[in-house]
Amino acid sequence: MKELRRHIEEIIQLTESEFELIATYFTERKFKRGDYVVRQGIKVDHTFFVVEGMMKLIFDDESGKEHILSFAMENWWETDYLAFHKRTQATMSLKCLEDTTVICLSFEDYHNLCAAVSKMEHFFLNKATSGHLASQQRILSLLASTAQERYFKLIHNYPSLTKRVSKSQLASYLGLSRETLSRLYKGK
Amino acid sequence: MKELRRHIEEIIQLTESEFELIATYFTERKFKRGDYVVRQGIKVDHTFFVVEGMMKLIFDDESGKEHILSFAMENWWETDYLAFHKRTQATMSLKCLEDTTVICLSFEDYHNLCAAVSKMEHFFLNKATSGHLASQQRILSLLASTAQERYFKLIHNYPSLTKRVSKSQLASYLGLSRETLSRLYKGK
Repeated sequence: MKELRRHIEEIIQLTESEFELIATYFTERKFKRGDYVVRQGIKVDHTFFVVEGMMKLIFDDESGKEHILSFAMENWWETDYLAFHKRTQATMSLKCLEDTTVICLSFEDYHNLCAAVSKMEHFFLNKATSGHLASQQRILSLLASTAQERYFKLIHNYPSLTKRVSKSQLASYLGLSRETLSRLYKGK
Repeated sequence: MKELRRHIEEIIQLTESEFELIATYFTERKFKRGDYVVRQGIKVDHTFFVVEGMMKLIFDDESGKEHILSFAMENWWETDYLAFHKRTQATMSLKCLEDTTVICLSFEDYHNLCAAVSKMEHFFLNKATSGHLASQQRILSLLASTAQERYFKLIHNYPSLTKRVSKSQLASYLGLSRETLSRLYKGK
């Protein structure tokens, strides 16, 4: 849980006893590469903090084509937020691209924790705001950037991604064909 | 300010004196159709709650083409969130499609208000979460839905939009040509 404490303390300061209380709301789980953490069609009870590893948030359309909404790596929170907050079945899946350790927080405990430790509401407000503005930027990039601009922005912001994620996964995230991405790689 | 009170009380209950205090942090402003509330390149100091009217959040690319990220109508909060929270110049503009009345909250007062009335932190967490999950759905729709699916979903969720927004504005939001949208209208 030390990664979680460090992560929370980037936003709010905690005493030893406050963190001891906070830690009781979280559960660590380990998944293998290829495992589903959230699965399309199944109720979503948890949100996940990535301690180590990498997951992808995906949507499989009716034709079976996979669309990648985001990659979630160390220090990221991810889940199907609509399904988590509205208590419904997932419309997306969260799948491990590497062996992954996450810290899980249930919907019930998310609300209980905010009620018990009001500082945590401030922490989650900060995280929800970051999530919202990152999503707004991704919408902007999908609407207004060329594939080449999206590719160079991605490797600029997350240089480790190209080492950890296959070209076909990157192409899917960028909305490119595998061939177009290969041309961009060569032109680097 | 009664619309703001009703809106906040959908999430949290307030006493008369609590709302009197909260109201001191907000300022009402009126804009005319065509006015800019936020302008690309200019620092963003406020977030806006729409009391009456309609705005569009847009990005003008280098070629001068306008991309519509969202429409903001009654009971919506909107701004360039990255610029607002990071204290930078706007990369997007917020422009009135109708005469619009907004209630403004400055960055400083947003934080002062949360510190003074902790219930408001809960309210803003709820709003940031809604904004994040709506953005996640818009990303999904941009990645995985056809133009026709996006159109029918939009008019299903916001039936009043087709009456208040021109076809060319709707086409821009959906990422369609004006001609394709006209064909969808006829096929309704």
